[in-house]
Amino acid sequence: MNSEEFRKTGKDMVDYITNYLEQIELRQVYPSVEPGYLRPMIPDSAPEEGETYEDIMKDVERVIMPGVTHWNSPYFFAYFPAATSYPAMLADMLCGALGCIGFSWAASPACTELETVMLDWLGKTIGLPEQFLAGTNGEGGGVIQGTASEATLMALLAARTKVTRKLQAENPDLSEAEIICRMVAYSSDQSHSSVERAALISGVRMKKIPSDENFTARGEALKKALEEDKAEGLIPVFLCATLGTTSSCAFDNLMELGPICNAENMWLHIDAAYAGSAFICPENRYLMKGVEFADSFNFNPHKWLLVNFDCSAFWVKKRSDLICAFKIDPVYLQHDHQESGLVTDYRHWQIPLGRRFRSLKLWFVLRMYGVKGLQDHIRKHMRLAQEFHEFVKNDDRFEICAPVILGLVCFRLKGSNTLNKSLLQKINTSKKIHLVPSCLGDKFILRFAVCVRTLESNHIVFAWKHIEELATEVLKEGEKQ
Amino acid sequence: MNSEEFRKTGKDMVDYITNYLEQIELRQVYPSVEPGYLRPMIPDSAPEEGETYEDIMKDVERVIMPGVTHWNSPYFFAYFPAATSYPAMLADMLCGALGCIGFSWAASPACTELETVMLDWLGKTIGLPEQFLAGTNGEGGGVIQGTASEATLMALLAARTKVTRKLQAENPDLSEAEIICRMVAYSSDQSHSSVERAALISGVRMKKIPSDENFTARGEALKKALEEDKAEGLIPVFLCATLGTTSSCAFDNLMELGPICNAENMWLHIDAAYAGSAFICPENRYLMKGVEFADSFNFNPHKWLLVNFDCSAFWVKKRSDLICAFKIDPVYLQHDHQESGLVTDYRHWQIPLGRRFRSLKLWFVLRMYGVKGLQDHIRKHMRLAQEFHEFVKNDDRFEICAPVILGLVCFRLKGSNTLNKSLLQKINTSKKIHLVPSCLGDKFILRFAVCVRTLESNHIVFAWKHIEELATEVLKEGEKQ
Repeated sequence: MNSEEFRKTGKDMVDYITNYLEQIELRQVYPSVEPGYLRPMIPDSAPEEGETYEDIMKDVERVIMPGVTHWNSPYFFAYFPAATSYPAMLADMLCGALGCIGFSWAASPACTELETVMLDWLGKTIGLPEQFLAGTNGEGGGVIQGTASEATLMALLAARTKVTRKLQAENPDLSEAEIICRMVAYSSDQSHSSVERAALISGVRMKKIPSDENFTARGEALKKALEEDKAEGLIPVFLCATLGTTSSCAFDNLMELGPICNAENMWLHIDAAYAGSAFICPENRYLMKGVEFADSFNFNPHKWLLVNFDCSAFWVKKRSDLICAFKIDPVYLQHDHQESGLVTDYRHWQIPLGRRFRSLKLWFVLRMYGVKGLQDHIRKHMRLAQEFHEFVKNDDRFEICAPVILGLVCFRLKGSNTLNKSLLQKINTSKKIHLVPSCLGDKFILRFAVCVRTLESNHIVFAWKHIEELATEVLKEGEKQ
Repeated sequence: MNSEEFRKTGKDMVDYITNYLEQIELRQVYPSVEPGYLRPMIPDSAPEEGETYEDIMKDVERVIMPGVTHWNSPYFFAYFPAATSYPAMLADMLCGALGCIGFSWAASPACTELETVMLDWLGKTIGLPEQFLAGTNGEGGGVIQGTASEATLMALLAARTKVTRKLQAENPDLSEAEIICRMVAYSSDQSHSSVERAALISGVRMKKIPSDENFTARGEALKKALEEDKAEGLIPVFLCATLGTTSSCAFDNLMELGPICNAENMWLHIDAAYAGSAFICPENRYLMKGVEFADSFNFNPHKWLLVNFDCSAFWVKKRSDLICAFKIDPVYLQHDHQESGLVTDYRHWQIPLGRRFRSLKLWFVLRMYGVKGLQDHIRKHMRLAQEFHEFVKNDDRFEICAPVILGLVCFRLKGSNTLNKSLLQKINTSKKIHLVPSCLGDKFILRFAVCVRTLESNHIVFAWKHIEELATEVLKEGEKQ
C-alpha cells in the first residue's frame, strides 16, 4: 500500500470508525459467539498474495464485530471505564506515523520531554503535591506506564532494591536472597489482583490486611500486622494503598496509613487507577487526603480521563529510587547527553525497553477538552451514578452494598447469593446491557459502573428498567422453586 | 469534539501523516535540540478551556517536530528497525475505536481469538515447529507481548515457578526463597540488556557465558558453566539464547545449546527479537536450526515485519507452564466460559492486566502484504545491507567486524577506538544520517542497520559517500595531531 492508497483508505477508515461510534447503540453490547467461533471463519494460514483493504473491511464486519464486546456502547456498565475519545485517537494516529521508540532521550527528545511536562501538567490538574512533579529542579517526576499493574510492580521493585541496598550497606555479608526472603509487603484485602501478582513476580511475600466495614484499610489493622511480622523477624518494605477499589470503589485511609509507613520507612504506593481521574475536580480531592505521605502515586487516564489505552500515569517523589533500581547501560543505548543530569531516559523507569509516543494523547486530550471539559465529563458521570443509585434505593427489593462515591454503584437483591447470581446471569444472557459481579465479604454483588463517554440519563433509565424487570422475573422463579 | 468534527479532523490527520511520511527525507533525521528544549515552548499547565485541532497541529510543527528523531527517515540507520506501515496504521485506528481491553476471553472474544489464530498464522509463516502453535488441540500457543523484554521476563518467571513447584513437591519444607536463591540462569555475553534486567526483576542470578570469536554462544562454554555451578550446589533453570544479537546480529548455536538444556531440564528461551522476521524467507531458516529444542520463542514483528510497535510475538510449547505461573482469579474478572478449557484468558500470559486489540495489526499486515510481500521486504533489506557491505569491503581504510547475515553491517575504521568514536561523533553531529555504536570485545564499532521500509539504493549510496568523506576528514585530523 503506497501513500496515495493510504490517503484514501485512511479516510475511509475515519468514516468507518466514526460511523461505528455514532451507531454503536444499534449493536448488541455483549456478543453471542461461543468459544472457538473465529478460527473456522478465516483461512488457516496467511495468504501468499496481498489482499485489498475492502476484502479486509468486509471481514471486520463478518468475523470481528460479531465477537466484540462493545466497551464504547452506552449499555456497557462492566469492569471500569476504558476511555476512548476523538482527540486521543487523533494523537494515536500521529504517534503511529512518527513510529519513534522513545527508550532514551536521544531516541526522540520530543517523546521524552513532552512526557515529562505532560505528567507535570496532569499532576497539577489533579492537585498532586509538588514533590511528585519534575519541574525544572525537582527530585520527583512522572512517567507513562502501560497499566497500573506495571506501576505497582515498578514501585515494589524500587522498594525492594532500596531496602536491599540499605541493609547490604549496613551488613555486606547479607545476600540479596537472604534479605528478600525476610521482606514483607502489604495491601488491603480489597486491593486489585495485580498487587498480589506484583508480589509473586518480585518474590516479596505479600500480606493482606483486613479492611473495615466500608472496605477501607485502616491504620490499626496495619499496625497489628506490622507488630506480628516484626516480632517474627520480617522486614516491612511496602504498602500498596488503594483509592477507589475495583470491587466497591472504597478508599483506604491514607491519613492513618501514611504516617505509619513513613515512620517505618516503608514505601507507600497509592493505586488510584480508577479514582485518580476524579481528582481533576477539586471537590473530590478530599478523597486523596494524605497523598503527601506517599512515595509513589498512580492513576489511569485510560480509564476515566478520556485518554485511550494505554496510558497509566505514575509519579515518584524521588526519581532516583526508580532509576537506580534497574539501570543497565549497554553501549548501543548510550548517548552524549545521558550523564549530563539534564535528561530523562525513561527506559530506566519501566519494565519494557521500547515505548510509544503516548504523551501525545495526553497533550491532545488536555488541550482539546481543557481542564473544564474534563471536569464536566467526571461530574456528569458522577451525576449519572447517583441517578442509578436513586433508582436502586427507591426499590425495596434491592440493597446498596457500598457507599456510592464516584461512578460505581454496588447493589444486590436482598436475599441469597444464588438469587443474585441468577439475576446477573439473566442480565448477561439477555445481552441488552453488560455488568460484571464482585464479592464484598461473603456477599455476591452486582457492579454498575458508569463507563462510556456518551452516556446519558436515558441509558440509565433503560438499564434500570431492564434490571428491575429481570429482578421481578428472578424473584418469581425463586418463589416457584 | 463530536463525531462530525472527528470525521473532518481525522481526515486532516490522515493527510498530515501521509504528507509527513512522503516528505520525510526533507526533515533532518536527528534533531538539533538540546536537553530541556521543550518545556519553555509550552505553557506550564493545562489550559482551562478547550483549544482547537488547528492550534495543536501548529504546535506539532513548532514544538514536537524539531525534537523528533525520525525513525522512518531513510537516513536513519540506528538501533534496529521500528516498523511502520500503512496497513498497521489502519488497524491501529480501528483498534483505538473499538477500545476493548482484552484481558479475558469475555472482555472481547474477537480480541482473544484473533490473536490466537494470528499467532498460529505468524508461527507457520516463519516455519516454527507445530508444537508452538495452538491449533485446535495443541498444548502450545502464542501471545502478543509489548516488547521482547517482557517476553524474556515471562519465560524466566515461568521457568522459576516450574522449578520451584517441582522442588517443593519433592521437599515440601523448602521455601520459595531458599529455592530461588540457588537458581541460576544463563545467557551469552552478547545477549540484550533486557535479559540481565529480567534476571534482576525475578531475583534469579544470571551468568553470562562467553561467546566465541563470532560472538556466538556455544555448547562447550555452557557445559563448563553448568559444571562449575552445579558443583557449587546451584540449580540451573533457564537459558536465553539469542538469534540476531543487538551488537552484531550473531546467532547462538542452538544445535549445541538445545540438547544440553533439554538434558538438564532447563527452560530454553529464544530471543529472536530482530532476526525472527527474516525467517519468513525459507532461505533464512537455517539460522533457526535447533528451535525445536526451545520451550519458548520470541520475535518482534514491530521491528522488521512492518507491524507498528507494540507487537512482540511470543510462543510457548506448553501454555500451561505460562498460565499456571501467575494465575489469580478475582470475582470481577471471572466469566462463564473460563473453566471450559476452550478459552484463552491472555491476562495470565503477561505482566499487565489490560491489553489492546493488537492482533488486528498482524491481520491487516499479513493480509495486505501477503507472505510474498513481506518476503520481498526482507529480501530487499538484506540486499541493501549487502550493498553497504560491499562499499565498506572495497575501502581499505575500513574493516568489517562481524559476518553480515541479515540487515546489519558492523564496521569500523582500521585503527583505534578513539578514531572510531571521532567518526561516529562527526556522523551524528552532521545529522545527515543517524547511526549508533556498539562494542565487540574491546573494539568500539559502528552499527549500520537497514531500517526503513522506503529505503532504496540511492540512500545507501548517499550514506556511504557521506561516511567515507567524514572518514577522510577524521583521518586527516588524526594525522595532524
